[in-house]
Amino acid sequence: MYKYDMDELFELSIEALRKKGVEIQDIAEVVYELQKDYAPITIELCEENVLAVLRKRETIHAVLTALAIDKAVDQKLFDEPIQSIIEDDEGLYGIDEVLSLAVVNIYGSIGLTNFGFLDKQKIGIIDKLDKMKGKEVTTFTDDLVAAIAAAAASRLAHGFRIKEEEQHHEA
Amino acid sequence: MYKYDMDELFELSIEALRKKGVEIQDIAEVVYELQKDYAPITIELCEENVLAVLRKRETIHAVLTALAIDKAVDQKLFDEPIQSIIEDDEGLYGIDEVLSLAVVNIYGSIGLTNFGFLDKQKIGIIDKLDKMKGKEVTTFTDDLVAAIAAAAASRLAHGFRIKEEEQHHEA
Amino acid sequence: MYKYDMDELFELSIEALRKKGVEIQDIAEVVYELQKDYAPITIELCEENVLAVLRKRETIHAVLTALAIDKAVDQKLFDEPIQSIIEDDEGLYGIDEVLSLAVVNIYGSIGLTNFGFLDKQKIGIIDKLDKMKGKEVTTFTDDLVAAIAAAAASRLAHGFRIKEEEQHHEA
Amino acid sequence: MYKYDMDELFELSIEALRKKGVEIQDIAEVVYELQKDYAPITIELCEENVLAVLRKRETIHAVLTALAIDKAVDQKLFDEPIQSIIEDDEGLYGIDEVLSLAVVNIYGSIGLTNFGFLDKQKIGIIDKLDKMKGKEVTTFTDDLVAAIAAAAASRLAHGFRIKEEEQHHEA
Repeated sequence: MYKYDMDELFELSIEALRKKGVEIQDIAEVVYELQKDYAPITIELCEENVLAVLRKRETIHAVLTALAIDKAVDQKLFDEPIQSIIEDDEGLYGIDEVLSLAVVNIYGSIGLTNFGFLDKQKIGIIDKLDKMKGKEVTTFTDDLVAAIAAAAASRLAHGFRIKEEEQHHEA
Repeated sequence: MYKYDMDELFELSIEALRKKGVEIQDIAEVVYELQKDYAPITIELCEENVLAVLRKRETIHAVLTALAIDKAVDQKLFDEPIQSIIEDDEGLYGIDEVLSLAVVNIYGSIGLTNFGFLDKQKIGIIDKLDKMKGKEVTTFTDDLVAAIAAAAASRLAHGFRIKEEEQHHEA
Repeated sequence: MYKYDMDELFELSIEALRKKGVEIQDIAEVVYELQKDYAPITIELCEENVLAVLRKRETIHAVLTALAIDKAVDQKLFDEPIQSIIEDDEGLYGIDEVLSLAVVNIYGSIGLTNFGFLDKQKIGIIDKLDKMKGKEVTTFTDDLVAAIAAAAASRLAHGFRIKEEEQHHEA
Repeated sequence: MYKYDMDELFELSIEALRKKGVEIQDIAEVVYELQKDYAPITIELCEENVLAVLRKRETIHAVLTALAIDKAVDQKLFDEPIQSIIEDDEGLYGIDEVLSLAVVNIYGSIGLTNFGFLDKQKIGIIDKLDKMKGKEVTTFTDDLVAAIAAAAASRLAHGFRIKEEEQHHEA
């Protein structure tokens, strides 16, 4: 029924993000900025956590849906008025943020505050995606990348705590 | 900036639902089934509450986005693998439910249980939309219609309480 | 800083549930009822999934908070009017459901519909907790137990899919 | 059944916030900081929006529950380990944020980003509540006050848009 296995879906998601100009490294850098003051972390550790978030089925579904919507709007395939509302990333349109919640919540409620913060203080790739608006539709993509970074930062925070406590059950 | 006023968006949403085979009356009947055992209600009162939910900007954005996604998938406009995942309404795909949360929560957290209930016990129009699967994509539409009915049922429940208490401030 | 390790917190949560009259087996039976028609499952498998949900820090925090609130209200320790509102499990009070969302979402958005369903169709231990109302405060506990069962059912559903696809990355 | 009318509950909530050191004016100032760059607003307008948020039943329930939990923990009434976890506002404890979501979502999903932002960049009264930690438990209160400010900022943003469009149906 489900025609793709998870490894394939994972690779396809990373490929789809890359086509939109988003590399794992870019997201890892946002995670690094979010967490560097709280723990002695490396970019490699941030990358690991981004990849773990991206392996989740919920993330894969959200990534592929968000990119598909932005692409369809870019190609003017949606009817009016929703075509213009998404294309202009209209200020009170919040469905992009709602969709991102699917990812934000995966590693607990602390992901929420990082997501809100990133949405206001656009860092690195999120700023880059935001500035593409006008030339290319990134309405759903920028929120989703922020959600992945926020979830990865939560995972990393939980991980440090777990390590500290020398226990391995949480998963 | 925002090219449409709210009245126009409201009318366009109702028209878009109608094109998909969903009438206000159909949603009102679901609300009636949900609430009839709790209060002396009429179909007219249910319709009023459905219309109030549909006038909300958040609902309008959610309705238009959901219908646009289902239509795009119906026309095979999305890339694989997300085209098949949405087309088949794959069992573990939950982005349609996440999007519906934008509407479910508008009238408080009690909307949530009605939404979950409708998703399991498909009533009236929700059952009809569900049975269209295979011929027409209704992956996002059916969850959204359930969300509108759940929110309208919440609004109605809150309204009765308010009336009972003879106070008029809540709005 | 955090004075307890996760193993200890896990044991304390199970103990706290037991004191309230909720056994792992009771929750496993609800999971079994939710999933039996979809896959060839056993009570043992349901128990495993309930335990996995209970090992999550988010669940532990939610369980201990919910039980503490119900206990405080049982002992009339809260001020009016919130003491009466929680004690009577007032119809429009939805904070208990909001708190449960912390658990419902852990294994993806499909947990949401099982939670909503359980809140309407009270099965097994959830019905028992509901019927204790009047003698003992279970306002937060019954929603939380429903949330644990819903999350465990999601985890089980995801697990079967993963197995089918013979892949082991998702965790 | 419900022993209090909404006016009474509204007054009791404001009184309970005041006892904790939180005035309407304090929350209005946070809203002003959040929105001053986007629209020509006054403190009076911010206060109006804070009061509208506080009149909602969902907000009243959340306020009274949050204050009751903080007070009970302040008086050491909860059992260990949850007593210490809440008292120390332990870093991975996120139930306070989950409870606040009940309020954040009332005026649409754009409230979410303001909430996340406030949780990171503590402004005015939120900073003051945060600095009380150690002397007085404010674990749930600070998140809730942030949620009220975030919801009021959303309401204000929606209101300006509505005015602009000269329409009066949304409510």
